[in-house]
Amino acid sequence: MTDSLSYSQHLAQNARAAASELAPVAAGRKNAWLQRIAHALREDSATIVAANAKDLAAGVQAGLSSAMLDRLQLTPDRIESLAKAVEHIVALPDPVGEVIEGQRRPNGLFVTRVRVPLGVVFFIYESRPNVTIDAAALCVKSGNAVILRGGSEAIHSNKALQAVLKKTLGAEGLPQHAVQLVESTDRDIVGHLLSMGNLIDVTIPRGGKSLIERVAREATMPVIKHFEGICHVYVDATADEQMAIDITINSKCHRPGVCNAAETLLIHRDAAPVIWPRLAKELQSRGVELRCCPTSLVLMGSDPIKSTCKAATEEDYATEHLDLILSVRIVDSIEQAIEHIRNFGSAHTDAIVTNCVASSMKFEAEVDSAAVVINASTRFNDGGELGMGAEIGISTDRFHARGPCGLRELTSYKFIVRGEGQIRT
Amino acid sequence: MTDSLSYSQHLAQNARAAASELAPVAAGRKNAWLQRIAHALREDSATIVAANAKDLAAGVQAGLSSAMLDRLQLTPDRIESLAKAVEHIVALPDPVGEVIEGQRRPNGLFVTRVRVPLGVVFFIYESRPNVTIDAAALCVKSGNAVILRGGSEAIHSNKALQAVLKKTLGAEGLPQHAVQLVESTDRDIVGHLLSMGNLIDVTIPRGGKSLIERVAREATMPVIKHFEGICHVYVDATADEQMAIDITINSKCHRPGVCNAAETLLIHRDAAPVIWPRLAKELQSRGVELRCCPTSLVLMGSDPIKSTCKAATEEDYATEHLDLILSVRIVDSIEQAIEHIRNFGSAHTDAIVTNCVASSMKFEAEVDSAAVVINASTRFNDGGELGMGAEIGISTDRFHARGPCGLRELTSYKFIVRGEGQIRT
Repeated sequence: MTDSLSYSQHLAQNARAAASELAPVAAGRKNAWLQRIAHALREDSATIVAANAKDLAAGVQAGLSSAMLDRLQLTPDRIESLAKAVEHIVALPDPVGEVIEGQRRPNGLFVTRVRVPLGVVFFIYESRPNVTIDAAALCVKSGNAVILRGGSEAIHSNKALQAVLKKTLGAEGLPQHAVQLVESTDRDIVGHLLSMGNLIDVTIPRGGKSLIERVAREATMPVIKHFEGICHVYVDATADEQMAIDITINSKCHRPGVCNAAETLLIHRDAAPVIWPRLAKELQSRGVELRCCPTSLVLMGSDPIKSTCKAATEEDYATEHLDLILSVRIVDSIEQAIEHIRNFGSAHTDAIVTNCVASSMKFEAEVDSAAVVINASTRFNDGGELGMGAEIGISTDRFHARGPCGLRELTSYKFIVRGEGQIRT
Repeated sequence: MTDSLSYSQHLAQNARAAASELAPVAAGRKNAWLQRIAHALREDSATIVAANAKDLAAGVQAGLSSAMLDRLQLTPDRIESLAKAVEHIVALPDPVGEVIEGQRRPNGLFVTRVRVPLGVVFFIYESRPNVTIDAAALCVKSGNAVILRGGSEAIHSNKALQAVLKKTLGAEGLPQHAVQLVESTDRDIVGHLLSMGNLIDVTIPRGGKSLIERVAREATMPVIKHFEGICHVYVDATADEQMAIDITINSKCHRPGVCNAAETLLIHRDAAPVIWPRLAKELQSRGVELRCCPTSLVLMGSDPIKSTCKAATEEDYATEHLDLILSVRIVDSIEQAIEHIRNFGSAHTDAIVTNCVASSMKFEAEVDSAAVVINASTRFNDGGELGMGAEIGISTDRFHARGPCGLRELTSYKFIVRGEGQIRT
C-alpha cells in the first residue's frame, strides 16, 4: 500500500466516523461552533495574514497574475468579512430534522419524510482560501463531515484556517474529523479519494473545466458538477428600452468573469432598430468587445463603433468567454431565440426582457435552464440572491441539486413510519 | 459504426427530442393518454395473452422454474389489474409545474422553485412484463421520455405491450418516442446506452445484483440503484409481547422474497426470556429456518425445535436471504442493536418494537436507514404504503432519491425569477 493511498483511506474513514457522530447533533451546538469560528478568525487574524503572506510570496515567484494574487490574498478586512459570513450561516435554519412532508395513512400509520445529512462530502476547490471556511461551515451546519482539498498555491493559508476550524471543533466537543484538510499536494490523493465511493457520499469540485472533467470521469460517488455558464439575455419585441439596456449591461459588465454573466445577447428584430444602436454604444463605452451577426452590423448604420465589431461565429455562440466579450444576434421571433438558447446555451441562466405576458410564459415554460429570469439581470442566479442564504456552488446538473446549492442541497432524507402494531395484509 | 451503436444512438436521440416536446405538456393530456392505455389493454387483452404464450412456451423450453414462469405470465385478470394500476396513476397529482417553494426577495424579485421532468430515463428490468406498462406510465406522467429494456424472456409480451403504448401515444398526439422499447436482445445496446450520459439523464436498473453492479460500473449518467435489503426487527425491552410477535412474523413471512422482508431479529435480553421461546415456535410453525446466536439457543431450553435451529454466523447477519430464513440475536442494549444494524444492515428498512419513548427517539435518530419503522412491519417500506401512489423502484442511495421512488423522484426543478427590471449592484 502506498503512502498516499493509506493517507487517503485514513481521511475517508475518519470522515465516515465523524459523519455518524455529527448527524444527530442539534443546531444549537453547530451554531455555537460557528460562533467560535467567527471569534477565532478575528483573534487569529494576524497569524492567518502571516501564513497567507507565504502563499503570496510563493505566488509572486511562480509568476501568478495580479488577478490571481488578488484572489489569493487575505487581508484583515477580508478575514472580518469571512467571520461575518460565518455569523450569517448561524442565522440560517438547520436543514437536518426538517420534516419535508408528512401524512397519516388510512391504516393509521404516521409517515414523515425527514431531512438527514448526506454524510461525507469531498470538496475540491482552487485558489480563494476564504472558500475553506465557507465550505466547512456549510457542510458541518448541514450535518456532514467534509474533506477539503484546496489549491496548492493556498496551502499555507488553508493550513492556518484549518487550525482555526480544528481548535474550535475541539472546544465545542464536536468530532475532530468533521473537517479535514488534505495537507499534502500529492495529486494521487485526489484519485484515491475519488475511488472511495463506499466511504464518501458526494464530491463537489469547484474550479476549471479540466478539474471538473477529471472528477466526473474518475469519481465512484455522485458528483455535483458546475460546468460552464453560457448565459443569454433575450430582448423581446415589447421590451422596455431602458430596462433592456440596464439588464444587458448589468448581466454582461457587473462581473464578467463569473458563471452567471451573460455571454450572448439576442434581440427580436422588431425591437432591434431602436434598442440595439443605443445599447451597442453603451456596451462599447464600457469596454465590451461585440461579436455581431450580419443583421446587427447592418443596424449600426454608419456608426464609427461598427468598425471595432467582429463578426460572430458559431463558435462564439458556444463559448463561455468569462470576459468583456458579447456575442449579439438579431432573431426573427421568440421561437428562434429559444431555439438558439437550446442549441448554444448551457442551461445555466437565461433571461428575457419583455412586457408581453404570452412571451414571458412561453420563455418560462420552454427554456429549460437552472434559472429562468424575467425582467431582471442574469447575475441573480446566486444562492444569496435567490434566498438560500449561502451556497457551496452552483450545480449545472439536473439530478439531486440544480442551480445554487445551499444547506438543503447538502442533505438527503429518510422516512419515519410510526405505528401501533400495524402489519401488512 | 456498428449496427448496435447506431441503433442505440437513434434511441437516445429520439428520446431526447421526445423529452423536450413532452416537458411542457399539461396533466390533462398525459392523463387522457393513461386512460387510453387502460382502455386498450382491456381491448387488446387476447392479443397480449397470445404474445405472452410465446414467451411462456420459450420459457418452458428454456427450463425456467415454475416461480419464474408465474412471474412471466399475463392472464386476462392480470391485464385487468394492470389497467386498474394505470387508472390509479391518472388520479395522482402531476409533479411537473409544482411550485416547491417561493418567496419575494427584499429587492422585489419573486423567486420560485418549480418542478420539471428529469428528461430521459433509461429503465432496465427483468422478467415481469407488467413493469413495462407501470414504468412507461410513471415516466411519461412525470414528463420524461423513457427507454425500456426488459428481459429477453419477456420480449414477445413486451412488444405487444409496447404496441399498446405506441398506438395510444399516437392517438393522443403525444410524441411517438416518449416510450421506446429496446426490441433487440443484443447486450451491447445496454453498454452503448450507458455511455450516452449526454443524452440520457438517469438510468434505473431493477433486477439482480449483477445487473445493478454492471450498470453502476458502466453508467456515465446518474443511476438510481436498488441494492439489497438486509432489514431488521429489533424487539426492545419494553415491547408488547403480542405486537412483537405479529410484527416479526409479518416482516419475515408476508413475502419473504422481497427487499423489505426482515432478515434478522434482534431482541433485548430483558424481553427475550418471555417473548423469544413463543416467537420461535410461531416462526418455526410457518416454516422459518432459524439461525440463532448462542444466547437465543440457551433460552429455548429443552424445546424440541431447538434441534432444528442452526448457529448464526457473521455471514448470516450480512446476507439478504430473500427466503424463509431468519437470523436471531439477543442483544444487551438498544445501543448494541443499533450498532448491529450499522455493521450488518444495508440501510434499507429497520423496525423497532417498543413502548419506551426514549428508545423510540433514539432508534429514530441513530438508525440511518431509508425507512425507520416504529411499531409496525418492515413491509410498509413501499411507495403505495408510504403514500406516494406508485413507485418505479426503491432507492438504496442517499443522493437525489432515497427509499421508494414515485413521480416526484423522477423530477428535477428550475428556478423562476420574476422582476421589474432589477439589476445587481
